[in-house]
Amino acid sequence: MISFESDYTTGAHPRILQRLVETNMEVQPGYGSDDYCKAASDKIRNACDCPEAEVFFLTGGTQTNAMVISSMLQKYEGVIAAKTGHISLHEAGAIENTGHKVLELPQSEGKLDASVLEQYIKQFYQDDNHEHMVFPGMVYISYPTEYGTLYTKEELTKLYAVCREYHIPLFIDGARLGYGLMSRTGSMSLPDIARLCDVFYIGGTKVGALCGEAVVFTKNNKPKYFLTLVKRQGALLAKGRLIGIQFDTLFTDNLYFDISKHAIDMAEKLKEIIREKGYRFYLESPTNQQFVILDNEKLEPLKKQVRFGFWEKLGNKHTVVRFATSWSTTEEDLEYLRDVL
Amino acid sequence: MISFESDYTTGAHPRILQRLVETNMEVQPGYGSDDYCKAASDKIRNACDCPEAEVFFLTGGTQTNAMVISSMLQKYEGVIAAKTGHISLHEAGAIENTGHKVLELPQSEGKLDASVLEQYIKQFYQDDNHEHMVFPGMVYISYPTEYGTLYTKEELTKLYAVCREYHIPLFIDGARLGYGLMSRTGSMSLPDIARLCDVFYIGGTKVGALCGEAVVFTKNNKPKYFLTLVKRQGALLAKGRLIGIQFDTLFTDNLYFDISKHAIDMAEKLKEIIREKGYRFYLESPTNQQFVILDNEKLEPLKKQVRFGFWEKLGNKHTVVRFATSWSTTEEDLEYLRDVL
Amino acid sequence: MISFESDYTTGAHPRILQRLVETNMEVQPGYGSDDYCKAASDKIRNACDCPEAEVFFLTGGTQTNAMVISSMLQKYEGVIAAKTGHISLHEAGAIENTGHKVLELPQSEGKLDASVLEQYIKQFYQDDNHEHMVFPGMVYISYPTEYGTLYTKEELTKLYAVCREYHIPLFIDGARLGYGLMSRTGSMSLPDIARLCDVFYIGGTKVGALCGEAVVFTKNNKPKYFLTLVKRQGALLAKGRLIGIQFDTLFTDNLYFDISKHAIDMAEKLKEIIREKGYRFYLESPTNQQFVILDNEKLEPLKKQVRFGFWEKLGNKHTVVRFATSWSTTEEDLEYLRDVL
Amino acid sequence: MISFESDYTTGAHPRILQRLVETNMEVQPGYGSDDYCKAASDKIRNACDCPEAEVFFLTGGTQTNAMVISSMLQKYEGVIAAKTGHISLHEAGAIENTGHKVLELPQSEGKLDASVLEQYIKQFYQDDNHEHMVFPGMVYISYPTEYGTLYTKEELTKLYAVCREYHIPLFIDGARLGYGLMSRTGSMSLPDIARLCDVFYIGGTKVGALCGEAVVFTKNNKPKYFLTLVKRQGALLAKGRLIGIQFDTLFTDNLYFDISKHAIDMAEKLKEIIREKGYRFYLESPTNQQFVILDNEKLEPLKKQVRFGFWEKLGNKHTVVRFATSWSTTEEDLEYLRDVL
Repeated sequence: MISFESDYTTGAHPRILQRLVETNMEVQPGYGSDDYCKAASDKIRNACDCPEAEVFFLTGGTQTNAMVISSMLQKYEGVIAAKTGHISLHEAGAIENTGHKVLELPQSEGKLDASVLEQYIKQFYQDDNHEHMVFPGMVYISYPTEYGTLYTKEELTKLYAVCREYHIPLFIDGARLGYGLMSRTGSMSLPDIARLCDVFYIGGTKVGALCGEAVVFTKNNKPKYFLTLVKRQGALLAKGRLIGIQFDTLFTDNLYFDISKHAIDMAEKLKEIIREKGYRFYLESPTNQQFVILDNEKLEPLKKQVRFGFWEKLGNKHTVVRFATSWSTTEEDLEYLRDVL
Repeated sequence: MISFESDYTTGAHPRILQRLVETNMEVQPGYGSDDYCKAASDKIRNACDCPEAEVFFLTGGTQTNAMVISSMLQKYEGVIAAKTGHISLHEAGAIENTGHKVLELPQSEGKLDASVLEQYIKQFYQDDNHEHMVFPGMVYISYPTEYGTLYTKEELTKLYAVCREYHIPLFIDGARLGYGLMSRTGSMSLPDIARLCDVFYIGGTKVGALCGEAVVFTKNNKPKYFLTLVKRQGALLAKGRLIGIQFDTLFTDNLYFDISKHAIDMAEKLKEIIREKGYRFYLESPTNQQFVILDNEKLEPLKKQVRFGFWEKLGNKHTVVRFATSWSTTEEDLEYLRDVL
Repeated sequence: MISFESDYTTGAHPRILQRLVETNMEVQPGYGSDDYCKAASDKIRNACDCPEAEVFFLTGGTQTNAMVISSMLQKYEGVIAAKTGHISLHEAGAIENTGHKVLELPQSEGKLDASVLEQYIKQFYQDDNHEHMVFPGMVYISYPTEYGTLYTKEELTKLYAVCREYHIPLFIDGARLGYGLMSRTGSMSLPDIARLCDVFYIGGTKVGALCGEAVVFTKNNKPKYFLTLVKRQGALLAKGRLIGIQFDTLFTDNLYFDISKHAIDMAEKLKEIIREKGYRFYLESPTNQQFVILDNEKLEPLKKQVRFGFWEKLGNKHTVVRFATSWSTTEEDLEYLRDVL
Repeated sequence: MISFESDYTTGAHPRILQRLVETNMEVQPGYGSDDYCKAASDKIRNACDCPEAEVFFLTGGTQTNAMVISSMLQKYEGVIAAKTGHISLHEAGAIENTGHKVLELPQSEGKLDASVLEQYIKQFYQDDNHEHMVFPGMVYISYPTEYGTLYTKEELTKLYAVCREYHIPLFIDGARLGYGLMSRTGSMSLPDIARLCDVFYIGGTKVGALCGEAVVFTKNNKPKYFLTLVKRQGALLAKGRLIGIQFDTLFTDNLYFDISKHAIDMAEKLKEIIREKGYRFYLESPTNQQFVILDNEKLEPLKKQVRFGFWEKLGNKHTVVRFATSWSTTEEDLEYLRDVL
């Protein structure tokens, strides 16, 4: 069945598989010290226009969030996130499992507002009892957000200014970073992202890799003995090459950006089809995830013809569902969708 | 200076000290196996009208919350609490330190509503992705709440019914339990409390003891090897008698209830004085904590004459402050307050 | 340079890559619910002759050890292991990171002895203070051990009998399981392994996969909501197919066993060469890891010609080094080694 | 029944209770900011001849060990201790509960040897794989040890030199510190202790207090926001005065040292009695704990007449038991013991 359920339902971009095959019998050292991890790191540093960046490859998004957050926080600190943030809701308590609280703030369309953030931090330090509370030790945002929305460059600049004023690192979850960077309304480049935060990751799993996320520490701030911390979390791959080769490929000949752009093109067509068929959007998303409002009675029949994601109930009569495009979505997929809607 | 800052600014009720002196040279075994812990447990079981209750003595409130919650939750579970709950805000992340998330729900005057709770749990299980989320594994409330308010018997009955329906234990934080039980508008007795939850604790520190809280497991549900778990948390006192003697004294000749009633009588007089002096209350509290709205300019002069607690800013011009009475508050203290207000 | 440094220096068996390519564009659901994870589980159940076995795929060895141990232990328990066990020494504290102690016992050639184990458990329960100690809650062994040695069927049977007597689950780390099963002196089959423990894992990373380990719960004892626990640890792959396809391939047409046998054949030839060249072994290993004693002065020259692993100093003049064969070792590799030794 | 079971079977030194009574109705702020905690800190700094020392009061020994160790270690580090160390064996895994491994080294009569320690640390850093292992991040010793023995000044000086060379803090568990300082063969003063380590604690629970241990950070090294860390562990007392008053009393008029000396005097008499009665010692202990070898058949009859502690089996026919004196042991207790032996 044709699926718009998520951006991780197919394998990897064929060029990635081809490189895995080509390099397969080469002897390479383990744990990320192979040639491909090095080459991929160089290419990422270059693409970020950030020669001092330190790059580390991990396997998946929740793992990366837990590693980055737990290794950068002090024991008395927690991480600020939107109430709708992935770490707040959909990681089964992976952050709390490392001993740290997620300090949940109100959001708008998945985004944290700089003034809400500043107000929160100010109040914290004004509170006479703040030494009995969890200190704000990091700010977590996602780009695009869990609702497919994007911070403008101005919004991110303001947010980062608050972080810097209070010496709190800003961490950007880029599980779908490519789709944000290539959005038609997106105003930010990879170097902008690298400049406007302390650490971020470039998502591979949802952007054409079999698995893998590239963490980028941009401010000479890689935690000491990070490899040991990763091992301690059970997150260190023996054959680090598996991720190195994938990112080396994704950052060769613009592949990461090209396949991200393809997904955006497909999403724009999908939006047209949905509008044309008279459906409403839950919100305006400029990236590959589209949130559509369906009448409850249409839900079940449609489920039998195409796969999509359940998002949330909207009152008694409607349901918000998610259609996601990806690097592997085709024009045929869209034509099929047009037919069944 | 006269202080209404909190209910833990003086030592212990004199009868407690007297008993400590009288029993001082007796040889007693350690770790809670002494005669006084046994006697106190018996008296508490009796006062709770719950012969099968298992009682365990700990040192302080945050410790007790962390011990009860972490020992009763499964690793995939978190604890539901009001956003204003003590464990949500004022325990420096002690629950998260045990690896569990506090699932914060909206509240009203510090209280969780049964229908809000039920809605949350229902939605959780309806969510296709709930296995990627933190399971609701316990409900935490406080009686009285952090705002001095009380659940009615009807409210607690409804809340507990939801918990039972979903097989989720209900835990009542009774750091100030005596003040709730003896409130003039309170409708609940200690046996009611014991019946309407799975585990609760009787606060000693804030109700006349030097330290100590008595955890009561009321449904044959004391976690296996709880003593070992307490030791592992660094919470096991070698001289368990210190707490046993205190609770034995508090539950002899109605002392716990009498001194709680005294604090309530003092709180009612304090409310009269505050009303008489034309101040407004932030909310109507029937227990020993009173939340008063002060003009900001009056704050500093008043601070020089009497001690009280800062609670929170209210707009730009006002501040909410807390006046607390306790077992040791005197009529003279109140007369003094009348003079300085 | 020719390398005998470890069994994870090349990619994956070519048939695995071929299957990844063939299935690449298929739409499959995430998180291990794909067709390949199901097929692989069926084949593994079959190969184990254990129809009730529950199989779960994880990414690497340390992750698997931490997941299995932390999800099966109670909070008051620790895991017994040999002092030389992988979890004791070489996992950067991954077990302790989950809050559990590794209870280290003396060993012989990497193996735990049943009588030493029984003695330890007996003494624990005889100790009046055992409630102040970490309870033995699981026994961890590896097959083959970290020294390449193997438990005989009799030894394992005795060890498991002790575990069953004390109701303590036995966990077998099978990171290199294939090499143990196909050893010429090994007396155990996969069904024997499945029968003689409560949970074990079949190593992929070191036996021809890019990554992946298959955990097998053999006694209807998969921890409740294990998927949630895996997510909470950051160990759940979105594209679970990546590991499903690999194990489906490894357990098709006897591949896992055939490539393991190849490594053993190569190891036997390597042993001949080493003996022939007059070197001594640190111990007699019947599997793919060979521990050889080198004079310190020969160490540096040899390092320039062939890669091998440093193991430990032996007195002042000698060093123990490790030569490992794998599924990808060739006769040419061995001829080269013969020449340089 | 007369008891030599431990040094925590009676209450507190009467002067402590007297001070608790005298100060009972004073209004004091909470959480250790009271006048008595301040006064006690000053007196301890003075007694340590270490004006820059920072003092923090906690409730019990295991709690203190977990707090100090977890707040001073990095996440990739563990704590080195003797295999017989209290944190290794008798704290129910409290250190591992904070996520850190106890790196257990061989010992002699409960003591770590400087050369064994140095060898261990050297080997760790020489190991090519040490980034896959737990880093040594602290050294824990106890003074007196769990066997009642004492490091000589020379031994401690050497041990601390190794620690300083490798920049690893040395932590001394002084649960029974007074008994070590006042031992007739002890060569160390409190200032010596303060000088020859980075952090230690002065035990109160086992030396005349109801509860309480005074942590002393001697090298300007109190962890940042230590109060918050203590709160997060559930270890912060609301009425901090309870411990402040006790240590203020213990460090007034030499009380701590006088009552420790008394226990030593009683222990020396106890040793005479035991020798005189023909019993053997398991080892020569110069402090208040005496380890005596009993024939198994004498064990049960003796248990009916006097309380003592079980230590361990010694072969098939003998048992090692512990007799402990304390500040509250009397000449009459000893006469009684002489009669029953």
